Amino acid sequence: MMVHGSRFQLVRVLYQSVQSIMCAGRVISPRAGFATNPFIPTASATTDKPCLLSSALRSSSLLSPQLNGPTFPSSKFSSLKLCTVVAPRYSSRNSVRMSVDATESNAGKQALLLTDAAQLISSVETFIFDCDGVIWNSGELLEGVKETIDMLRSLGKRLYFLTNNSTKSRRQYAERANKFGLGVRDDEIFSSGFAAALYLKTINFPANKKVYMISESGLSEELDQAGISYIGGPEDDDKKADFTPGAYLHHDHDVGAVVVAFDRSVSYYKMQYAALCLRENPGCLFIATNCDEVIIPTGVQGLPGEAAMVGAIKGTTKKQPIVVGKPSTFMMDYLCERFNIKREQICMVGDNLETDILFGKNGGCKTLLVLTGVTDLKTLHSPENSIQPDYYTNQLSDLLVGSKLQTPTHQ
Amino acid sequence: MMVHGSRFQLVRVLYQSVQSIMCAGRVISPRAGFATNPFIPTASATTDKPCLLSSALRSSSLLSPQLNGPTFPSSKFSSLKLCTVVAPRYSSRNSVRMSVDATESNAGKQALLLTDAAQLISSVETFIFDCDGVIWNSGELLEGVKETIDMLRSLGKRLYFLTNNSTKSRRQYAERANKFGLGVRDDEIFSSGFAAALYLKTINFPANKKVYMISESGLSEELDQAGISYIGGPEDDDKKADFTPGAYLHHDHDVGAVVVAFDRSVSYYKMQYAALCLRENPGCLFIATNCDEVIIPTGVQGLPGEAAMVGAIKGTTKKQPIVVGKPSTFMMDYLCERFNIKREQICMVGDNLETDILFGKNGGCKTLLVLTGVTDLKTLHSPENSIQPDYYTNQLSDLLVGSKLQTPTHQ
Repeated sequence: MMVHGSRFQLVRVLYQSVQSIMCAGRVISPRAGFATNPFIPTASATTDKPCLLSSALRSSSLLSPQLNGPTFPSSKFSSLKLCTVVAPRYSSRNSVRMSVDATESNAGKQALLLTDAAQLISSVETFIFDCDGVIWNSGELLEGVKETIDMLRSLGKRLYFLTNNSTKSRRQYAERANKFGLGVRDDEIFSSGFAAALYLKTINFPANKKVYMISESGLSEELDQAGISYIGGPEDDDKKADFTPGAYLHHDHDVGAVVVAFDRSVSYYKMQYAALCLRENPGCLFIATNCDEVIIPTGVQGLPGEAAMVGAIKGTTKKQPIVVGKPSTFMMDYLCERFNIKREQICMVGDNLETDILFGKNGGCKTLLVLTGVTDLKTLHSPENSIQPDYYTNQLSDLLVGSKLQTPTHQ
Repeated sequence: MMVHGSRFQLVRVLYQSVQSIMCAGRVISPRAGFATNPFIPTASATTDKPCLLSSALRSSSLLSPQLNGPTFPSSKFSSLKLCTVVAPRYSSRNSVRMSVDATESNAGKQALLLTDAAQLISSVETFIFDCDGVIWNSGELLEGVKETIDMLRSLGKRLYFLTNNSTKSRRQYAERANKFGLGVRDDEIFSSGFAAALYLKTINFPANKKVYMISESGLSEELDQAGISYIGGPEDDDKKADFTPGAYLHHDHDVGAVVVAFDRSVSYYKMQYAALCLRENPGCLFIATNCDEVIIPTGVQGLPGEAAMVGAIKGTTKKQPIVVGKPSTFMMDYLCERFNIKREQICMVGDNLETDILFGKNGGCKTLLVLTGVTDLKTLHSPENSIQPDYYTNQLSDLLVGSKLQTPTHQ
């Protein structure tokens, strides 16, 4: 039985602390790591494990971020609690350890087929949806999604949309959602590009520093919104490295963070510039909007995700990124603080075990896997998969009360 | 005192076996791994550690490679002994473990400044030289190299040149060396592109299979020489990934190996194609010609090495490459077998601790670090560096008997 309230919080924090120490052997104090000065070397420069921003230990420290950019959300985020925990990310063994994080209430529990949607809906007051593979696929709204969203709104549920996709800005995603008639406000939809900008604001990224972006256009719009200077991104798409003997690439010594996002125009030049900043600018941060291995942008085939771009920079610098997108619970902390949501009253709905479901589990939420995206039943039930959602179902529209639920058939 | 002969071999093999097991927890039998059928899944598909071809355990198994390509060297290589050992590669902790490999004779020994070049020269009968940073830098012959080479030849020493650079073929490197008057034969100079082709021949890569290359032109010339079919490489430089909804990239199901080499034109399309082959072609091998983090092709600045390209593919596939270039001792095995060289009579000369010097140490050779390339004195003497050569000196020409040796000054 799940224990609620402050005692549960305390138990979970202590549990997560022990898990974190067991997992990584090192926990970074936010004060020591970046609260005072983001440009002193942090975990990203010294460890061989990726650094996921996590809610573990979140009650142990308090930051006072300055969130006063012109259009940046700030009203309810003035007391955001943050910390970093060095947590393993890639191997299945590491996934086992990570999935244990915050799952004391259902450790070892196999996912249940969702058979009582009404009960799940009544047990939570907030839904967080991943977008690609849940709401839409390759730009097409999935069947029954609009009716499901309308039904949940009519029941007074709060709905948020949280995508690891950084190629577009919040504004662009809201436009897409509303083109489908979903009635989504700008402050209900969030991308990992937004998370990167939010993270930089939260650590008081100095105004005289700038970001070097390996990214498409979505990230720059988020940085603009946050009032953070940047270079790179699409501007560097056509630049070529010069290999002439004696050729020297002069890079900008004011770059204080390299943010790597998904970029179809990733190139040797961009790798060169990012690596120069990370090697030669003291304390330069290495931030990844996510580490998704595979994405399905065309709807029919798995293609390399951001893990390819991040892997290239990791390879040449030996540094590990700070990951701000899912499964990092950074955005969970933000949503809960800003909108005053209790974690146990959230259901996280996603198609990706290693990002969406782990995000929900690390955040202490209920989790629902849908099979309209990157995960099929075989993967869910594989002995190698250690990440079990609370529930799984065919598609989001199975939440429609009164719909005929069927045994999932997506293979 | 070093123990020579069969007893030493036995001790070293046993020692290396224990080290390998301690390092990686898993040793792959060459018979089980690839000797019988290279297309069954190997370490590259299942482990989270890179797979370095190593001489450890080399006496425990015997392969009978078919090396009968039209112009491929075969005369003395018919009984090449091969095995794979899963060995850690990247972190400094792993480097400690790897550097212990084959160094029982000088464990914990700090590198000595070379003060008696004549004694070193007389104690060995073969020199293996790295090229970039040792023989030349950004296309310019380093001072005194020609005289040193001439002197060593006049003393009857056998000389081999072994570069991790895969952008050119053996023929092209020999042309460069001879433009400088070094009198190098084609069978004295070897690249990591050659090593990849040799590896594929050694495992009897099926004639109806082909290689997908992420590479520049040097690799294709080596594969041509070995009679191995290939696609990709420079031919794919201008291709773009299609993200149109429903777009499906049909890849070649006959690709049996993805070989990743250095490629200034690396692109999302190439990552996409390579990842498709590795994910969807059963048993497709993932081979890296090397994993150098930094190279200095312009002579004035460190730029991303092949670890960037390899890191991208590792990131999106979660697979680990089989590394055939230095520090893998695959080429050491080849040279010793083909030219009947005793390892203890070799001196490996290089500028890179993690490739050249580790290669020499793993191979059981004497090692000499020169400071004309990627390593400076500060790095050599850093407490974080666990890889100590037997000797270090300013430049290759310090080997010239009678030259005035100076305390190294390169910082």
